[in-house]
Amino acid sequence: MLSALDLAYRIEKGDLRPSAVLEQCASAIAAREAQIGAFAALDLDAVRRRIVAEEAALVTAPLRGLPVGIKDIIDTADLPTSYGSPIYAGHRPAADAAIVSMLRRAGGIVLGKTTTSEFAFRNPAHTRNPVDPSRAPGLSSSGSAAAVAAGMVPIALGTQTGGSIIGPAAYCGVVGFKPSFKLLPTVGIKRFSWQLDTVGLFAAQVADVAFAADAISGRPLRVDGLAPAAPRIGLLRTFWDEASPAMQDAVEHAAKCAAREGAAVRDIAMPAILAEALAGHLTIMGYEAWRSLAFEHDRHRAQLSEPLRAYLDEAAAITAESYDAARRQARRAREAFATMMKEEGLDVLLTPAVPGAAPPYGVVTSALFSRLWTLLGAPALPLPAAHDADGLPLGVQIVGRFGRDRETLAAARFIETALAGR
Amino acid sequence: MLSALDLAYRIEKGDLRPSAVLEQCASAIAAREAQIGAFAALDLDAVRRRIVAEEAALVTAPLRGLPVGIKDIIDTADLPTSYGSPIYAGHRPAADAAIVSMLRRAGGIVLGKTTTSEFAFRNPAHTRNPVDPSRAPGLSSSGSAAAVAAGMVPIALGTQTGGSIIGPAAYCGVVGFKPSFKLLPTVGIKRFSWQLDTVGLFAAQVADVAFAADAISGRPLRVDGLAPAAPRIGLLRTFWDEASPAMQDAVEHAAKCAAREGAAVRDIAMPAILAEALAGHLTIMGYEAWRSLAFEHDRHRAQLSEPLRAYLDEAAAITAESYDAARRQARRAREAFATMMKEEGLDVLLTPAVPGAAPPYGVVTSALFSRLWTLLGAPALPLPAAHDADGLPLGVQIVGRFGRDRETLAAARFIETALAGR
Repeated sequence: MLSALDLAYRIEKGDLRPSAVLEQCASAIAAREAQIGAFAALDLDAVRRRIVAEEAALVTAPLRGLPVGIKDIIDTADLPTSYGSPIYAGHRPAADAAIVSMLRRAGGIVLGKTTTSEFAFRNPAHTRNPVDPSRAPGLSSSGSAAAVAAGMVPIALGTQTGGSIIGPAAYCGVVGFKPSFKLLPTVGIKRFSWQLDTVGLFAAQVADVAFAADAISGRPLRVDGLAPAAPRIGLLRTFWDEASPAMQDAVEHAAKCAAREGAAVRDIAMPAILAEALAGHLTIMGYEAWRSLAFEHDRHRAQLSEPLRAYLDEAAAITAESYDAARRQARRAREAFATMMKEEGLDVLLTPAVPGAAPPYGVVTSALFSRLWTLLGAPALPLPAAHDADGLPLGVQIVGRFGRDRETLAAARFIETALAGR
Repeated sequence: MLSALDLAYRIEKGDLRPSAVLEQCASAIAAREAQIGAFAALDLDAVRRRIVAEEAALVTAPLRGLPVGIKDIIDTADLPTSYGSPIYAGHRPAADAAIVSMLRRAGGIVLGKTTTSEFAFRNPAHTRNPVDPSRAPGLSSSGSAAAVAAGMVPIALGTQTGGSIIGPAAYCGVVGFKPSFKLLPTVGIKRFSWQLDTVGLFAAQVADVAFAADAISGRPLRVDGLAPAAPRIGLLRTFWDEASPAMQDAVEHAAKCAAREGAAVRDIAMPAILAEALAGHLTIMGYEAWRSLAFEHDRHRAQLSEPLRAYLDEAAAITAESYDAARRQARRAREAFATMMKEEGLDVLLTPAVPGAAPPYGVVTSALFSRLWTLLGAPALPLPAAHDADGLPLGVQIVGRFGRDRETLAAARFIETALAGR
């Protein structure tokens, strides 16, 4: 994998040029893309021309001309954007999404569009898991996680409405970062649920996603350099029976490594109000999807996948009353979560990211372990913590307090370092 | 003006057909559009064909086939959408905005696109005020307010980020409705500020906007039929010196009429925290506009108006710290406003909608009296309360509590009825 931070350092020192990084990406793409299928659209020659033309300015910009993969539900004016749906085959948006413009302003280069399941829902793209191509890469930001895992890009953008960043990162063995709700804007992104859709990132390690998030957002989020203070970690075993024994071991292993390095780790139980609010996640998502995708449903129904058609038809019956009740409950749960973390003196939670290792290719993966944190708008990172007997990565999840993105990244880096030192 | 509710009743009874309503609209357009310029795009023949083809189904739908004007920052797949900017001249979005699909699902007919200032900011459209074409119609939902005022449509959609519904409605002498934040979705609307952009409606009277909002949202918002209970009204004289003597008289007149009909009216002072939060409105709007319009600024700068260029250049300097501080202050202000209304036992506030009557054509109008309520996400309605010596309408503003949209509409209807009985 390509470390964004390492590449940026070498460009800064003059040891590497952005065009050379691009050729590293191009080599990995040439070697593996035919098998993996991480990209929905790619024009390497156009990117080469741009880098040559702008190289002098790029090397001094925060992202230093690093290539970035963009999930294909994020609008780009220069590349087709099909949202994973035949309805939009060849669609060229009139404008870039805000996050794409912010990326360009920071000196990032759009390398290509990465695959997404249909409208970031459950109908998978054709992408395979680079760790083992017989396995699924997870939904829905499949291409972004796979492209980073295969060394095709150092950074990729994704989105999460249920578990679409956490899942693919965990299954592909890369680091993801779902920031606090609204830290990164969703303007120009195909919407599924306006209360839940969250923009985030993929990279090789925690310091890499922090570096990229810092550069794009213009906020102080970097966690390289300094040695992070030992965090106070709550070990959360909610839905523990849904996690494989290997995943349970991985979470406990991460906890032990962190404790050995000085972190205060203790078990924590999930307050009942959080479990209750979780049911509302599906209510909110469905109510809003029925409206967000109204045009596609009403005008292009035959071109929707059967699972999405069925989902929307069911979602049409959700009442405004139950939607409002779910939103109220989510608001109370957000407050309860903040209070719990404060009263229990916790910086982050440690919990499974997904039920286990990547399932076989074609199997639709579950967002059970990530939906609650999307609903609460809390920053969350999946982190490769171990491998199973087949050599597949097992991703644990670090969850922080709303608005405490840098602290969450720092705690994740502490745990990542502790894991590496075993 | 055309009353949406009255037309819907007559269609329901079989006394009127949707195609006949369309011809009423077409007559008003033929008579006045050349002078007023309320539409940015219009294809009456296509609408005629659609109404004929679907008339049987339309008459039983909630909106009964009534024609609706759509502000031109709201995406429509069947009509060009140029966001009031030459950058998007002739642009055809790939999809309808969610609110347009919801309108169609409710049996509304998209009559045409109504003019907007450039990206709903300050560079005015060419629209004139139907009450007096030498006057401005207000910004930015100019075409929607003018089309309703000129009897060209019974209902129009608009948006508000500062005062873009309240202002045009007040200046054109129609009723507007800016609902609670997020009551109507913004998916598929050209964004300026994702924390502030709010979708709303224009119609002839309070019962008409309530009827349309009810039909489109599927929520119980109608206020016709029942006689609304007498509301408890707080008379708010904030920025009183910025209101013309005629506007001050109009607000006091509305208060007296309401009191005469049994409303409890008393003066209320604005808590300091609300005044402080108001400054943050501009911070939030600028910080987000610099990102929402990043593509247009970075790639099409020469095609932006000079005022918008200057605004964005200044907005670029707003820091994440001041943005976060403004958002925190807004959150505290929302809580303080809810507490104040509860503790003071108030249903709504009564305050000026705008500084006075419509200024001369070409003059950019102020959102001073409406920005706070946009920031707080509170439902607000402008209501014509009087006329000045030149016969120009003077709009007062009714502001309710977040989420109490029906109660706010009911209070506005009470005041409207009281005003009519003078």
